[in-house]
Amino acid sequence: MTDLDATFTVDFQPLGRRTRVAPGTTLLEAARQAGVGLNAICGGGGTCGTCRVRIMDGEVSPPSNSRAEDKAMAEGFRLACMTKVLSDVRVDVPPSSMTAQQRAQVEGLERVVDVDPFVRATDVAPQPADLHDMRADVTRVNDALRESRDVLVKRWDVHAMRQLPQMLRDHNWQLRVVAKDTEAIALLPPGVSALGLAVDIGTTKIAAYVIDLESGITLGSAGTMNPQIAYGEDVMARIAYALNDDGHLAELQRVIANGLNELTRQICASIERDPANIVEAVLVGNTCMHHLVLGLPVKQMGLSPYLAALADSYDLKARDIGLQLAPGASVHLLPNIAGFVGADHVSMVLAAGLHDSDLITVGLDVGTNTEISLAGNGRLLSCSTASGPAFEGAHIQDGMRAAPGAVEWIRVIDGEVRYQSIDGAPPVGICGSGILDGIAVLRQIGILRANGAMVADSHPRVRKGDNGLEFVLVSAGERGAPRDIVITRRDVNEIQLAKAAMRSGVEILLSEAGLHYSDIQRVIVAGAFGTYLDVDSGVAIGMFPPLPRERFVQVGNAAGTGARLALLSRSCRDRAIEIAHRMEYIELTTHPRFVEVYADALALP
Amino acid sequence: MTDLDATFTVDFQPLGRRTRVAPGTTLLEAARQAGVGLNAICGGGGTCGTCRVRIMDGEVSPPSNSRAEDKAMAEGFRLACMTKVLSDVRVDVPPSSMTAQQRAQVEGLERVVDVDPFVRATDVAPQPADLHDMRADVTRVNDALRESRDVLVKRWDVHAMRQLPQMLRDHNWQLRVVAKDTEAIALLPPGVSALGLAVDIGTTKIAAYVIDLESGITLGSAGTMNPQIAYGEDVMARIAYALNDDGHLAELQRVIANGLNELTRQICASIERDPANIVEAVLVGNTCMHHLVLGLPVKQMGLSPYLAALADSYDLKARDIGLQLAPGASVHLLPNIAGFVGADHVSMVLAAGLHDSDLITVGLDVGTNTEISLAGNGRLLSCSTASGPAFEGAHIQDGMRAAPGAVEWIRVIDGEVRYQSIDGAPPVGICGSGILDGIAVLRQIGILRANGAMVADSHPRVRKGDNGLEFVLVSAGERGAPRDIVITRRDVNEIQLAKAAMRSGVEILLSEAGLHYSDIQRVIVAGAFGTYLDVDSGVAIGMFPPLPRERFVQVGNAAGTGARLALLSRSCRDRAIEIAHRMEYIELTTHPRFVEVYADALALP
Repeated sequence: MTDLDATFTVDFQPLGRRTRVAPGTTLLEAARQAGVGLNAICGGGGTCGTCRVRIMDGEVSPPSNSRAEDKAMAEGFRLACMTKVLSDVRVDVPPSSMTAQQRAQVEGLERVVDVDPFVRATDVAPQPADLHDMRADVTRVNDALRESRDVLVKRWDVHAMRQLPQMLRDHNWQLRVVAKDTEAIALLPPGVSALGLAVDIGTTKIAAYVIDLESGITLGSAGTMNPQIAYGEDVMARIAYALNDDGHLAELQRVIANGLNELTRQICASIERDPANIVEAVLVGNTCMHHLVLGLPVKQMGLSPYLAALADSYDLKARDIGLQLAPGASVHLLPNIAGFVGADHVSMVLAAGLHDSDLITVGLDVGTNTEISLAGNGRLLSCSTASGPAFEGAHIQDGMRAAPGAVEWIRVIDGEVRYQSIDGAPPVGICGSGILDGIAVLRQIGILRANGAMVADSHPRVRKGDNGLEFVLVSAGERGAPRDIVITRRDVNEIQLAKAAMRSGVEILLSEAGLHYSDIQRVIVAGAFGTYLDVDSGVAIGMFPPLPRERFVQVGNAAGTGARLALLSRSCRDRAIEIAHRMEYIELTTHPRFVEVYADALALP
Repeated sequence: MTDLDATFTVDFQPLGRRTRVAPGTTLLEAARQAGVGLNAICGGGGTCGTCRVRIMDGEVSPPSNSRAEDKAMAEGFRLACMTKVLSDVRVDVPPSSMTAQQRAQVEGLERVVDVDPFVRATDVAPQPADLHDMRADVTRVNDALRESRDVLVKRWDVHAMRQLPQMLRDHNWQLRVVAKDTEAIALLPPGVSALGLAVDIGTTKIAAYVIDLESGITLGSAGTMNPQIAYGEDVMARIAYALNDDGHLAELQRVIANGLNELTRQICASIERDPANIVEAVLVGNTCMHHLVLGLPVKQMGLSPYLAALADSYDLKARDIGLQLAPGASVHLLPNIAGFVGADHVSMVLAAGLHDSDLITVGLDVGTNTEISLAGNGRLLSCSTASGPAFEGAHIQDGMRAAPGAVEWIRVIDGEVRYQSIDGAPPVGICGSGILDGIAVLRQIGILRANGAMVADSHPRVRKGDNGLEFVLVSAGERGAPRDIVITRRDVNEIQLAKAAMRSGVEILLSEAGLHYSDIQRVIVAGAFGTYLDVDSGVAIGMFPPLPRERFVQVGNAAGTGARLALLSRSCRDRAIEIAHRMEYIELTTHPRFVEVYADALALP
């Protein structure tokens, strides 16, 4: 039963494009309306079979009797041109059905770029060899590339060259040559798309994305802990470890490379692709993570004047840092700005568009280190603050990472302190967003003084604990909690230090630019923690400037988004270099006003 | 006691330059006369101490009382400017005393090239860092290179970059940056010269040379057996082995790389230098050795139409083929011509100057495979013949390599067959030059027929052996010989096959060029065996064309010489590419006249 007067929503995955159409509209028409570039070589006549899609959810017209659709059906597909919408529908579009040069949309920031990757695949079918044409294999393929597509290959990666003779003969003298500039770096069988890998290497977490370099679609993604955590929780601890012994730097490099390999294998397994099809990776990270993944010394970053070994953007072979992608695959690292403002922040600025915004914008990438940028008055300023791992739940007595059972949300409702745990599971601890809410609430109901001290007897749940006063958020047994969950004076102190660092950074950048809080038109909050925190609580505890809620935008992993943009678009790579050049770095630790501003920022409003 | 009327010889090592001077001449004057570029910053006043040399042999004037000479003496040196020649003298000139851009002379062919290497070292002293100048180390060094010497470095090898921060700080912000084109590939402490490695990889033997890239001097050299011999004696056997299993190709690659590493370590130990100071290597070899050292498949070279995977000249990182030089060192391979005429032959043609000679010249690189070139009538033709390992003593009943005790020389003197063994040691076998002489002698005294058959009862030393008739060259006990040494009918046959292959190649090239034997103005005989063989014997058995002795030149390892030239001179590298392009390859096996010519060439004249 369908309602002929209604309109239905068609949701195209994995692109996340939606459109509303009248009942009976074909999926091909809906795709065009939604701006989804579906192949349709026969023009929608149901004969070519190139517009295959998978119906995930909803009701559509029965299959046509065309041979092309029968064939598609056998593999679980329908032809978009022959399939009419009879309810809300969710449709999965496989990469093979997407037109090339598809525009890529990335989550959160909704930035759209033309797919114009640095690394390109070209199909080639050289003349087979015989005794009258004894050109070497490499010469033969180079000539064919030049003749057929005007692609100039000047050199071959030795690994790609090692595969060439057999590939040519196994695939009947047809193959895809993947080239970076004028170097052939990989070979693929005809019809197999080249993949890219975008990675944001955080001090604590790593996020990776595998992308189809032809369609621009993110095929899969995953996150994991940075395995270097075992060697030191923050940047300074890692630097100290690396200094300790000649082999330690190489060990940290190996550990992160292995972590990236494992994560890449996981994602590839989930999308049924081979990591050897990945021909380029873009890595971003703070300057320390950037140096450690390259195996560059970090000693000089731990001592004044805190210098990077390398600031410029950099390209090298994946194999030179132990990454197991295509054997000739290339790795690009976006430029760093300074010892403590790295490529991840350049990536975030790129993704958030700070560099070409007309609005006075503050960008915060909240993590173990928080990088802050300010765009305004024609300038681009940045600084870095060691906000510490408190927002990840570390150094908090009952802190934990955001996982089932973590209290993630606390409010005062009808005078009562209420909370919510992730997945509604029995509460076992407090994650970053919960502790932020908790402090806002404790201040709101008068339990905390402005200096962060807890007022004795201010609330029935305030008690004396082992380390001074504490607030009992959850009592053992409550909703299945195995033990009490408390917020201590020390926890409040940790958060005060972290939020003061962040707030001082913003304040000093503003003063450098000759601006005031009220001038800020937009605050972009990036980073995994930044996505989940409650902005109102952030404002309430003074972490964020006192601005209306609507000026804040939470954008998720913007550094990862920037890495994906740089993977897909040459012009984005150029813009990253431009951002790094324009960015004026302000060193907070030696700034004359820092101590004063920081002391003021410790207070709770 | 010195004779004031005599003149004395001064021999400068390791350059091998000699000159005759009057008694009392200073070594500095002698060096100038000999064309040896000695440093003499103070102009010969005995004050700067830059003209240090070591007296190896002979009588010289007593030391001056200068402080500079006292200091030099303490390290075993004398100052050339203050030291007078009082007898024949042999002098060792350390590289540090040589002026840069010394002209390089190479053995045998006496080719002189301007030292203009691809890879160059530049001294740099960047501004030390402070809080007001926080440029990254790489930026700082790039800027200093551009400012001081106008050297443009656009990228850094990751390994060179890993060394940069510590090197800068250890050497007080001074160091040498070694760049290839616009890439910084290695770092050296101030004053340490960059080294190059030239290698000729033969099917049977490897010859390697370590060269000072600043002075052009060959500091050391060594040869060894190609360790791949364990996997097959000739090219076809290696190809067959590589085909047998997926891992075999990689194994052959690893074995040759290990062999090169071992040989390089040996040479470096003998000259007290570190292999990590070697910043570029030039490798030459036949097409199969070239492919195996790169790990390129050889399967297609074993099957018609016998194609190379790669013909062009090629550059890659030493580490990508497992060579342990400077971690960022580069490797250059000269171009190949065809499946069986490789970079070693291009190198030989380069060294012998065939490409720019006005003489009609035949070049023979005699080895397990013999490559032949003909330059004349404005053309450059080449072919390859499988001459087999008989010249190395293999497949000969009492054959052995050229080592002490090998009979190397056989003549008829006063009607008697006389022989000589290497080092006069008790004879134990016959080496290549000996077997060639032997067959010439046996033919000369009527023991051999033109078809190679032995005439029974033609000589008291002819007897019946296990495999037909044989000639007893040495009887057991004679000069301490542990057993009889014989030349058999089969041995003669092996040499007939080998020499016929070589001779047919020359004949077919001549006919292709429209020339006759008598037109040949010069025959260049290269290769280790080619150096030691007796040209008259070669002519006598018909291996060489019947030409006057003076048209033959034996040049030793010309392929190795070509590799050294390509290491030292950009223009030689360009010329190698030009040679490969101009060279017309003639495939003998499918040539219509080959069978006929070969059958005729089997006979002994």
